[in-house]
Amino acid sequence: MKIERIAVHVFEHPTRIVRDSAGHAHAGTGAPGKARLALLRLVTEDGAEGYAFGPPEVIRPFVLDSFVRKSLVGQDAFDRERLWHDLVHRQRGSAGQLTDRAISIVEQAQWDWAGRKLGLPVRKLLGGFRDKVRAYGSTMCGDEQPGGLATPEDYARFAEKLVARGYKGIKIHTWMPPVAFAPDPRRDVAACAAVREAVGPDIALMLDGYHWYSRTDALYIGRALERLGFAWIEEPMEEESIESYVWLAGQLELPVVGPESLAGRFLSRAAWAREGACDILRAGAPGTGGITSCLKVAHLAEAFGMNCEIHGNGAANLQVVGAIRNCEWYERGLLHPFIDYDEVPAWLNSLTDPMDREGFVHLPNRPGLGEDINLAYIEAHTVERY
Amino acid sequence: MKIERIAVHVFEHPTRIVRDSAGHAHAGTGAPGKARLALLRLVTEDGAEGYAFGPPEVIRPFVLDSFVRKSLVGQDAFDRERLWHDLVHRQRGSAGQLTDRAISIVEQAQWDWAGRKLGLPVRKLLGGFRDKVRAYGSTMCGDEQPGGLATPEDYARFAEKLVARGYKGIKIHTWMPPVAFAPDPRRDVAACAAVREAVGPDIALMLDGYHWYSRTDALYIGRALERLGFAWIEEPMEEESIESYVWLAGQLELPVVGPESLAGRFLSRAAWAREGACDILRAGAPGTGGITSCLKVAHLAEAFGMNCEIHGNGAANLQVVGAIRNCEWYERGLLHPFIDYDEVPAWLNSLTDPMDREGFVHLPNRPGLGEDINLAYIEAHTVERY
Repeated sequence: MKIERIAVHVFEHPTRIVRDSAGHAHAGTGAPGKARLALLRLVTEDGAEGYAFGPPEVIRPFVLDSFVRKSLVGQDAFDRERLWHDLVHRQRGSAGQLTDRAISIVEQAQWDWAGRKLGLPVRKLLGGFRDKVRAYGSTMCGDEQPGGLATPEDYARFAEKLVARGYKGIKIHTWMPPVAFAPDPRRDVAACAAVREAVGPDIALMLDGYHWYSRTDALYIGRALERLGFAWIEEPMEEESIESYVWLAGQLELPVVGPESLAGRFLSRAAWAREGACDILRAGAPGTGGITSCLKVAHLAEAFGMNCEIHGNGAANLQVVGAIRNCEWYERGLLHPFIDYDEVPAWLNSLTDPMDREGFVHLPNRPGLGEDINLAYIEAHTVERY
Repeated sequence: MKIERIAVHVFEHPTRIVRDSAGHAHAGTGAPGKARLALLRLVTEDGAEGYAFGPPEVIRPFVLDSFVRKSLVGQDAFDRERLWHDLVHRQRGSAGQLTDRAISIVEQAQWDWAGRKLGLPVRKLLGGFRDKVRAYGSTMCGDEQPGGLATPEDYARFAEKLVARGYKGIKIHTWMPPVAFAPDPRRDVAACAAVREAVGPDIALMLDGYHWYSRTDALYIGRALERLGFAWIEEPMEEESIESYVWLAGQLELPVVGPESLAGRFLSRAAWAREGACDILRAGAPGTGGITSCLKVAHLAEAFGMNCEIHGNGAANLQVVGAIRNCEWYERGLLHPFIDYDEVPAWLNSLTDPMDREGFVHLPNRPGLGEDINLAYIEAHTVERY
């Protein structure tokens, strides 16, 4: 079925999230601001449609015209593997403009299109493994807001609320610059200890802290998390240095999870598996080049007898989680005391990842990626279309 | 969609193939004999059906009743990943009776069912990569029949015929016991040299010889194939000895392909990739636990930047070849001067893997696995049903 056109709507929506100078999301304290999101729409000659959301800057007109439309228009929308490789081949000459994230958005739209066309959730096309999954609540990075996530005690109080909400796992993002007192390994450990003290021994806890610690600091933190019975540590050092992770994972019994933000899609994960740079691999559909590329990392991990914990929330990741055996969690968040994650975003009619009181997210049975998109809202708030 | 029942027809069909005492297929010279094949049929509550063929002994009543029906009946036919793992878990207590091949047949039927139900070839469900593929002609093992595959000259003459038919690649299976003069490394090399001499430099040649050569013999053969410009060598030693393959692949520039017959599905392939025991990985849907399990090996290989050449012919393998980028060939055979591979088998209405005069096999666009099954023939020749 030939792809006839690919169009993008950039629309505005209210948000309580503000970004610091390093790009970290925090909870704003004033009136809601505005943010922009892009909806990519893929239409085939029979009128069937597929959708995927992404950052407008990633999928801007230049990227769409120079690469995406050239690869896809006129091609069979079911030829995901061929079209993905075609886009990847175009990356090299794109001066970095055709990113893995852009390719992922396009591929997600193809999966959504296929699921909608065939009347099935994407996980069932992939081959279903589960219908519900435990979610860990994933906090925002620490801040300096009173009553926010400014102190170890703030994290402890927030963790209690998350447990009351039903979460059986909590992942803590601690303080990073430009927060004045960050980074601070001892303060990170204090936050982890406060949370463990607050939630007791039966809640799974993970840490995703500052990403540029030294080996020494990372090992110090890791040893403390071992004593606190944490489930894993994530990205405490630059992931470009695989040697640092081999060094760390070789000493810690605490599982090391990664790589998360490393470039190279599934290709870069092979060395991590081979060298034992981590105990649990990591990939996410938006960041690792798409649903299939993320699945390839999960398959690589499975061949090595490793789990692959999926990075980030959202519809595409949820579909991967529903189709693989070798992960335990879905990452729900980012969460903050001032923000209600259970509030339906303005551009959806219902939550994609509703969680019950026992901490299970129930996978959507809606065809495609499973998002219940409010097209009327998006149309009414579109500020740019191309 | 719930699986309502799983049924097997065992039917007889005429064959010119005879098996020697080691199980190798050869061309019979007398009147056609009879062979038995099993057709597994999976039916869901809506009446939709999926089919897969396999050896009757692999999928006999005990296996079906004790394991397959217990895992599958009443379950969602789209839950391939969950049901596959459930079957694998049942293997441990099956005293070896629930084999990877049995699990593969069941999984193939699920894929066929899904493709038929959704009106798509399986490769398009997986995400299409190609619509045609180069085939190599894969000969039967050597024999002692005049005019068959008894001498290096026989192989040379047959290779000329294969090139005239359109093949751009030929894989030679040489002599193995109980052939009186086998194994013989020098005779194997003589056959390879005769074929190279006959077909010239532009035809890709591969060797899949005796599987229990010593390291020394394997290296001797490999060096000769390097001089003859072969494309790869396959399984010259026991694949359980990964160390032997690390030793061999470390010395040869000639690509080493494997493992082919090693147990352990995708799990056993990880060490081969990690240790450099081969240059090109190998797996096939029937032998490696199914289409998805085979795909996992291809994904493992892709993460390592390796190709994964698919083992064996048939519908399921052809669908995998159509869905992955990292293989170059489809294995068409087994071939022999006395047998016409292009003759449609009695239980099909048309060939699954028709090849044009340029040596390309065109992938079937029929929904499911793509076999054009002659159900009336099978019904009329059924000798056992359960």
